Amino acid sequence: MKGVDVVDGERLWRRIRELGEIGRQDSGGVARLSFTDEERAAKDRVAGYMKEAALSVREDAAGNLFGRREGKNPEAPAVLVGSHVDSVYDGGNFDGPLGVLAGIEILHTMEEEGVQTEDPVEVVAFTDEEGARFSFSMIGSRALTGRLSPEDLNHEDEYGVSIADAMRDYGLDPERVSVAARPAGSVAAYVELHIEQGRVLENEGLPVGLATGIAAPVWRRLVFTGETGHAGTTPMDLRRDALAAAAEVMALIEAEASATGSSVGTVGQLGVEPGGINIIPGRVELSLDLRDIDEGTRDLVEERILQRAREVCERRAVGFETEVLQRMVPASCSETVRGAARTACEKLGIRPHELASGAAHDGMQLAELCPMGMIFIRSKNGVSHSPDEWSSKEDCTVGASVLYHTVLDLASASIA
Amino acid sequence: MKGVDVVDGERLWRRIRELGEIGRQDSGGVARLSFTDEERAAKDRVAGYMKEAALSVREDAAGNLFGRREGKNPEAPAVLVGSHVDSVYDGGNFDGPLGVLAGIEILHTMEEEGVQTEDPVEVVAFTDEEGARFSFSMIGSRALTGRLSPEDLNHEDEYGVSIADAMRDYGLDPERVSVAARPAGSVAAYVELHIEQGRVLENEGLPVGLATGIAAPVWRRLVFTGETGHAGTTPMDLRRDALAAAAEVMALIEAEASATGSSVGTVGQLGVEPGGINIIPGRVELSLDLRDIDEGTRDLVEERILQRAREVCERRAVGFETEVLQRMVPASCSETVRGAARTACEKLGIRPHELASGAAHDGMQLAELCPMGMIFIRSKNGVSHSPDEWSSKEDCTVGASVLYHTVLDLASASIA
Repeated sequence: MKGVDVVDGERLWRRIRELGEIGRQDSGGVARLSFTDEERAAKDRVAGYMKEAALSVREDAAGNLFGRREGKNPEAPAVLVGSHVDSVYDGGNFDGPLGVLAGIEILHTMEEEGVQTEDPVEVVAFTDEEGARFSFSMIGSRALTGRLSPEDLNHEDEYGVSIADAMRDYGLDPERVSVAARPAGSVAAYVELHIEQGRVLENEGLPVGLATGIAAPVWRRLVFTGETGHAGTTPMDLRRDALAAAAEVMALIEAEASATGSSVGTVGQLGVEPGGINIIPGRVELSLDLRDIDEGTRDLVEERILQRAREVCERRAVGFETEVLQRMVPASCSETVRGAARTACEKLGIRPHELASGAAHDGMQLAELCPMGMIFIRSKNGVSHSPDEWSSKEDCTVGASVLYHTVLDLASASIA
Repeated sequence: MKGVDVVDGERLWRRIRELGEIGRQDSGGVARLSFTDEERAAKDRVAGYMKEAALSVREDAAGNLFGRREGKNPEAPAVLVGSHVDSVYDGGNFDGPLGVLAGIEILHTMEEEGVQTEDPVEVVAFTDEEGARFSFSMIGSRALTGRLSPEDLNHEDEYGVSIADAMRDYGLDPERVSVAARPAGSVAAYVELHIEQGRVLENEGLPVGLATGIAAPVWRRLVFTGETGHAGTTPMDLRRDALAAAAEVMALIEAEASATGSSVGTVGQLGVEPGGINIIPGRVELSLDLRDIDEGTRDLVEERILQRAREVCERRAVGFETEVLQRMVPASCSETVRGAARTACEKLGIRPHELASGAAHDGMQLAELCPMGMIFIRSKNGVSHSPDEWSSKEDCTVGASVLYHTVLDLASASIA
């Protein structure tokens, strides 16, 4: 057996770079939306890596891609590691792929090192974690935990294609998605390696950190209905400008979220109708992403924003409607997984720093099914969902090493 | 002589309805694009009305249709009234036809009442005011004021037919269009009756109003460049959110335009990049349409908006760029015409309410040649350029009566 730094960091790094070529944009970023040719190509490439690692490969009814390595006890619940390979519209090379490729890397290493685990270990590439295409995220991990409803599949992309339509085009049967659900007790634990997407580890000067829990977003659509009119002939005081109302509400979203010191509120999408340069907007639709580690704080900020938005729109005689697109519950990381990861860090001589996850992850879904934990690596400038997303080869290697020892512990390995 | 309500409102109304049948669409709206069979038919019908009113009829080299009634001094510059009979793709019965038909009506009334004016009076139906076909407006009035260049005739419609081609098909010689230009001093004044296309008069409860001037827009593009980032992991105080900056700037556009009491500022188009629900916007592009009848006021508001926008963006560390798409010059209504119209209103027992024209009209061109003024009538719900465009028979009659007395004054009539 080699030392503790046993994983092949060069191989992991090469694969991160190779996968990053799929869906590459002129911007330098990647676009791999779910159920597209680019996402398919990424899964096919990953399946190839899985086979190189001697894993048995399969895809489930939701398009989740698995690579399995048997344990001494093939009937035992598997330890699951992984992440996703879909991206946002102009994302980076690390958010998602790191967890999938590091999962393959540790199983490849086990194979090369002749490690036998008691429990089987599986690596998964979940379908659509980001939610960029349908404004509805974690399709694959919801399906795995049996919480993807038939109604969920009605969410549509910007061209009116529903998730169900997209699945059919992809060769999946949306009627059979419930088959992807794993029963309670069938998964021993879930561990995900991911970039931090924040600046805590950079500030701490640490390559890795361990998650205490995952903050949960509520996603809403806000619709403002004013009155179109000629931009030249309607005096300012006679207007019912949907966009002017939306601008005022965007300002208060920013103010209310900032006031808490912990919540974050983001308007990432905004559409204006009719969209003529000389026509007062009659309708504006925008998205709200609101998060906090503390569900109570988040929901209080949400309530204040909506109340003040209604006041703004009433004063302006602009119609206001809002609906929840999704409301997620913050997830706690399991003490079992955190303990194994802490021990792994200590084995590697790294101070086991714990931090909250501001970003949502598939682990939120998995926490309902099994003990769940996350290992983060340092993100340069905290940037993600951007072509500038970056983590060093060294940090990727250290992260994979922590994952390796964590999984060996959880799967009760006997080292050859 | 009859009373002040001397014009034949029934005749005017009947002609508005008759003309509205030419180019009638299934939508209920009308389509009479310039140099089409529909516009030709409308001009022929109008020529017939002119003859019924005992006017001498002619068309100039730009297709402008004139009906002339001689004054006691045939050498004197004529007072010109009128408007246009072309329409947008799905327009109403009033925008344009009202001014032409009311012009004929007042001359018809003068004939019937045996009124003699000192100066000749002409009514004109200008060629292509709307600009719907060639995305280039006021062809006839530009030609009349000698400001239609040979290059202007290269503008093409959606089928690649140029204005010059269309003129030839119509029986006009585009090489001779300069012949339509009237020399300085040859027109005593220009007065146009038009629907308001706004809600000021409706709100004031008045049938008519008098224009102080015709506002002209400056159109700008504003571009905000921030930094994309993950909506969950980027604390509010570390963001460079392009949309949050744009929202703050939209609020100050509204505030600065409103503060003048006369300017109008509209953001009609807005695009967000990358446009993911959970991504902090990195780039926002929006349009600004800013108008005032006073060019100095408009340009000062523009300057204040841009200065404050730069301050907002500097504070937020967001990049800001802007460019002019189009900058037009507002036209003032002449005190001579406004005075005559005020007196006419008072004669009819109507409070002479003055308002700016937010929409563009042929008068903008005429203002370069002679004293210019406009009389507006109330528009139902302020709607125009739509099958829903509507003004009542009563308001049309009152408007024509105000035009009648205004023109009698300007042409120094001696009542028989």
